Amino acid sequence: MNIKFSLLLIFLISQTISSQEKRARDYGIKIGVLKTGINNAITDVEGVKVGHTTLIEGDSIRTGVTAILPHSQNIYQLKVPAAIYIGNGFGKLAGYSQVKELGNIETPIILTNTLSVPTASNALISYTLEHPENKNVRSVNAVVGETNDGYLNDIRGRHITEKHVLEAIKNAKTGKVKEGNVGAGTGTICFGFKGGIGTSSRVIPESLGGYTVGVLVQTNYGGVLEINGAPIAKELNSYPYKNGMEADGSCMIVVVTDAPIGSRNLERMAKRAMLGLAKTGGIASNGSGDYVIALSIAKENLIDSTNDSSFYNKTELKNSKVTPLFLATIEATEEAIINSLFAAEDMDGRANHKIKALPVNDIIKIMKKYNRVK
Amino acid sequence: MNIKFSLLLIFLISQTISSQEKRARDYGIKIGVLKTGINNAITDVEGVKVGHTTLIEGDSIRTGVTAILPHSQNIYQLKVPAAIYIGNGFGKLAGYSQVKELGNIETPIILTNTLSVPTASNALISYTLEHPENKNVRSVNAVVGETNDGYLNDIRGRHITEKHVLEAIKNAKTGKVKEGNVGAGTGTICFGFKGGIGTSSRVIPESLGGYTVGVLVQTNYGGVLEINGAPIAKELNSYPYKNGMEADGSCMIVVVTDAPIGSRNLERMAKRAMLGLAKTGGIASNGSGDYVIALSIAKENLIDSTNDSSFYNKTELKNSKVTPLFLATIEATEEAIINSLFAAEDMDGRANHKIKALPVNDIIKIMKKYNRVK
Amino acid sequence: MNIKFSLLLIFLISQTISSQEKRARDYGIKIGVLKTGINNAITDVEGVKVGHTTLIEGDSIRTGVTAILPHSQNIYQLKVPAAIYIGNGFGKLAGYSQVKELGNIETPIILTNTLSVPTASNALISYTLEHPENKNVRSVNAVVGETNDGYLNDIRGRHITEKHVLEAIKNAKTGKVKEGNVGAGTGTICFGFKGGIGTSSRVIPESLGGYTVGVLVQTNYGGVLEINGAPIAKELNSYPYKNGMEADGSCMIVVVTDAPIGSRNLERMAKRAMLGLAKTGGIASNGSGDYVIALSIAKENLIDSTNDSSFYNKTELKNSKVTPLFLATIEATEEAIINSLFAAEDMDGRANHKIKALPVNDIIKIMKKYNRVK
Amino acid sequence: MNIKFSLLLIFLISQTISSQEKRARDYGIKIGVLKTGINNAITDVEGVKVGHTTLIEGDSIRTGVTAILPHSQNIYQLKVPAAIYIGNGFGKLAGYSQVKELGNIETPIILTNTLSVPTASNALISYTLEHPENKNVRSVNAVVGETNDGYLNDIRGRHITEKHVLEAIKNAKTGKVKEGNVGAGTGTICFGFKGGIGTSSRVIPESLGGYTVGVLVQTNYGGVLEINGAPIAKELNSYPYKNGMEADGSCMIVVVTDAPIGSRNLERMAKRAMLGLAKTGGIASNGSGDYVIALSIAKENLIDSTNDSSFYNKTELKNSKVTPLFLATIEATEEAIINSLFAAEDMDGRANHKIKALPVNDIIKIMKKYNRVK
Repeated sequence: MNIKFSLLLIFLISQTISSQEKRARDYGIKIGVLKTGINNAITDVEGVKVGHTTLIEGDSIRTGVTAILPHSQNIYQLKVPAAIYIGNGFGKLAGYSQVKELGNIETPIILTNTLSVPTASNALISYTLEHPENKNVRSVNAVVGETNDGYLNDIRGRHITEKHVLEAIKNAKTGKVKEGNVGAGTGTICFGFKGGIGTSSRVIPESLGGYTVGVLVQTNYGGVLEINGAPIAKELNSYPYKNGMEADGSCMIVVVTDAPIGSRNLERMAKRAMLGLAKTGGIASNGSGDYVIALSIAKENLIDSTNDSSFYNKTELKNSKVTPLFLATIEATEEAIINSLFAAEDMDGRANHKIKALPVNDIIKIMKKYNRVK
Repeated sequence: MNIKFSLLLIFLISQTISSQEKRARDYGIKIGVLKTGINNAITDVEGVKVGHTTLIEGDSIRTGVTAILPHSQNIYQLKVPAAIYIGNGFGKLAGYSQVKELGNIETPIILTNTLSVPTASNALISYTLEHPENKNVRSVNAVVGETNDGYLNDIRGRHITEKHVLEAIKNAKTGKVKEGNVGAGTGTICFGFKGGIGTSSRVIPESLGGYTVGVLVQTNYGGVLEINGAPIAKELNSYPYKNGMEADGSCMIVVVTDAPIGSRNLERMAKRAMLGLAKTGGIASNGSGDYVIALSIAKENLIDSTNDSSFYNKTELKNSKVTPLFLATIEATEEAIINSLFAAEDMDGRANHKIKALPVNDIIKIMKKYNRVK
Repeated sequence: MNIKFSLLLIFLISQTISSQEKRARDYGIKIGVLKTGINNAITDVEGVKVGHTTLIEGDSIRTGVTAILPHSQNIYQLKVPAAIYIGNGFGKLAGYSQVKELGNIETPIILTNTLSVPTASNALISYTLEHPENKNVRSVNAVVGETNDGYLNDIRGRHITEKHVLEAIKNAKTGKVKEGNVGAGTGTICFGFKGGIGTSSRVIPESLGGYTVGVLVQTNYGGVLEINGAPIAKELNSYPYKNGMEADGSCMIVVVTDAPIGSRNLERMAKRAMLGLAKTGGIASNGSGDYVIALSIAKENLIDSTNDSSFYNKTELKNSKVTPLFLATIEATEEAIINSLFAAEDMDGRANHKIKALPVNDIIKIMKKYNRVK
Repeated sequence: MNIKFSLLLIFLISQTISSQEKRARDYGIKIGVLKTGINNAITDVEGVKVGHTTLIEGDSIRTGVTAILPHSQNIYQLKVPAAIYIGNGFGKLAGYSQVKELGNIETPIILTNTLSVPTASNALISYTLEHPENKNVRSVNAVVGETNDGYLNDIRGRHITEKHVLEAIKNAKTGKVKEGNVGAGTGTICFGFKGGIGTSSRVIPESLGGYTVGVLVQTNYGGVLEINGAPIAKELNSYPYKNGMEADGSCMIVVVTDAPIGSRNLERMAKRAMLGLAKTGGIASNGSGDYVIALSIAKENLIDSTNDSSFYNKTELKNSKVTPLFLATIEATEEAIINSLFAAEDMDGRANHKIKALPVNDIIKIMKKYNRVK
């Protein structure tokens, strides 16, 4: 290979890498004071897997499914302490009341579009019933979240099938997580730009337990965008009630930790994710369905349904030790959201609707103006 | 026709009527102190319709769908003030958070079996999207309740289809309501006897507003049965932790009133339905999914989405005037549950399971022993 | 003393005893299916103490204080898992939000009249600050419940002092509990009769854990009285909206168990106490402040604030094992309420108001008519 | 007076004014995109009054009372639609459950220190009972919030008396509001600096209704300080878990609007105040008591208890029109908090504890570095 060609190749590869992989942090945007996990992803919590099914078909199908698996065993039989916090309830999340009552989840978590929640629930029921160990199961609490991708996607066509959902579960893997126009984020919009899936993580200092908190978001909401404190929306003169911009839309947030905490403290932690959303300029508008699902996968506290004892022995962090987890949740949520914006690309869809990606170069200029990028 | 034959016919008809139609009150069991509406049914609230689809097929399909329509217009465009109270959340009810956040419902209410909630939700979405006036609708909050009929019914087979749900909606009518082994009550069990659908109503005195409160229940739960205060379970020596009886199971309760009250007071009213359940001996066991959906169909407060005004003008009863509605809710819930037991008949089902109807003659004897039947 | 006189004395004493001590169960009224603890009192839960201060002075002071101590150590340093359920929130209970957030209590529980809650809170703060071990304490979550005794009592005079509260705490003891016109029940009214303090307990079968559930109530509410299922109010033709009867008023309920359960399941248990109230004919009227405070004093789960570990090790009953505790709570609440009515005596008070005790002889006649007394 | 001296005097006065009155906005810090009301204060909502009592005595008394009056009539008789949102419930706020149940408040709102809540409640009861029109009142739901000023203040001494509370009510006035070390903010600490009282307001565009939202805060919490997006805490290297900094502490937030909205939407609005807190770097730590009390003083919806009608006629904004109020709440809360920091001055107190005011000059330098000050 001659040198010219190899330089070209390097250039193309770097282009590819930059367009595919450059995350907010790669631009020198350092959100918060805690350090990230290895992949700066929800999968930094050991054993957590994420899978996507992305549907981009014809002119108007722009949707998908994202699956989050807290562990690789039979989740129905080895339930996971959990809580769901409702930031704003204008949404169709399935599974809330049982999680609230019993303090755990028993299926993978699925994210998809608003009108496909029942189909995704059906898929989770199928997934659970079909497991050989679950042959006597006659009750399944499917946990499915959603945002509305109906601007770009022919949501009324309800193109998600059970098969798409089962594929996302099957595809789930540890390690790096695809972000942007993928899975449940394929057709979403955030602050007027293309939104999507984003993820981030934080590790709290060893002296405070050394636990990891991972967050994954499906961003589809409005507000007055700030990135790491820089007033992007003001600079772009683009925010709700200005030039016809709308504020509505939703955000699904999944928080996982390996810290040993129970459902009461998980609910408190979930509540803090909304503080992270706030720092991006989110306002939880009337029309938003903002839900936070929080899980603790600490092995010692998983709930083994096959165990005959009347008792459940737990080792949980004391109330007084959970604050660092709150801070980690806030930071990881803020960064996951920003990552979703950096990763998403231009998308055309239904009815010739076009949504532009975050104009990264312009954004970086603004960030520089405010000295918020290294 | 000779006179002998016609007498026989009359006898047969009356038998049929009595077996089909004798409700608790027809036996002289008079629950509470308020009077009932004309049909002693949820449909006594003007305009409310109920429809059933009943699936009894082969050896093991014993399930169905019950639809409650608050009014006959496009519910999505003319939303209804509503609240949902969670008595115990071990259930899969769909639609909770949006009702809580916005204070209204926008679809008919569907009751069915646990594993068919997503299918029923899908049907409600279809039903809503297909209405010509809703051609731009891209978000639907389907409200679906359930109980688990998996002892008699092959629930894992998920035999309910969207068509069944749409039929129940289509079948819905005002007037008398079928009770017992019908619709969503086809395969349910209550206090160890065959449960099912039951309904009742109360009219509060004119001096207190003259409003009607109607209740419909899907009974599938356990406890220590009392009927109008008579200690049935004790007499029959049959209650939880006695002879292996279980307590688990669920109760879905739908409460409708024409009293003009908003979502906050509807939630309070919904909460009182659990007091009615308590009077039957229900204990809201760990495994129960006890939900109460309450609606006010007072015309002046329906929420017209097609109206352009920024304002919503309401005329609501003051807090200090709602107590009679609470009492009516308690009484109608208690009687609706008892009606479900009186109406249900023996049912065989899956795996040769057999559930006996309430042994009405024995029950009446016990009621007489306790002087609780006229 | 001659024999005639001593017989008379014995007769008088026995009269006194019977009038003071005959509880519902002594009349053959057997509520529920579970057995009671030794004293059929909240103090059957080991270590629980109850103390009263009763203020009956002049024509118009008819009030008091009741203190419930979960254990005899420093409660601030050895906190107790707890939950508070709000049956109806038209009341002034102090301490709710911290119990909800942290899942425990750190003071004795005080019951008193509506306008004396702040004074009782002040007393609990004093009580806590003064303990030598608490010399650095600068935050105290006082838990104080109330009902409104303002019909008989000059409640506007606010006659309860901190001293009265501290006396009730000091007087607290294990064993039998005084009921009726005592402590916080001195001036209360229930179903139109004199209400007051009542207590009861249940022990669940050994095979289900053998745990004890104790309940103490302060009864001050209305509705359609039933005793053990007998329709007392109907027989007496005396219930709300009949002859001007009112329904308003409140009920404070304290539930304690030695079963090892945490705050989430305690909240569920607390919720069931309202089902017990329902069985007496309570309707939780608009004007009621119905609160249930539930505690678990299982030693293994008490929260030792002096312990340096970051972790809290718990052994809790599984969700699937809590139903018997629900049943016990319902039964003990129902009986505690009925006990309060049987124990209370006629009381005159403010503005020449007079409230009659439950007419026990008439009641027993009605109970016999309905075969609900042995 | 010669000209030199009078110039000096003018200089001194202007200095005094500037040191007393320079608020964040006066330094060119412009938070958010909406415009403020005339005084940029909670009192921009017409009729709202604020009063303070400040206790600075000897070495160790550093506390006070702040009163917020929604209107100048008898609040008990002309109740105000209200909601309380619990951001984090580790606090002692009085009055929560009745506001939640009934949707209104009936007293002024008092803020003070943690251990003086009962005394302030007693004062509100006295205040209410003493009003001639309230001579038959026997139930008062006092609403009192607090934060813990026990680092600077001898909180255990409980130096607040009922008289102090009544004075704050009496002193309440419309117009400019004193901020910083005043009233309930006298002894508080925020992000390691002296906190205190702060206020701000927003007016939404005429096209969206032109309503005003006013916020008043009592700041006493920790986190990772940001001012208008500038990373102050990072620059100062001072935040939780760094150099022993703690995160605990609380924030009381009062939100008032003249927009006609009811308790359900007020609760949603209250919830958004926590998003404003988030933007200052607040993390709602485990130990925080973060409560938001929201009121609507729209005249047409005030609840007149003296009115005999059974009905309550309301004109409320539709759900779909409330988002601008959410944005206004977020912005005004953020700015009110920052104002509290700018207004507060150095304070010494108990045990020789000293807390420095925000070092405004250094802060402005940092703000300039990040281009966040004009």
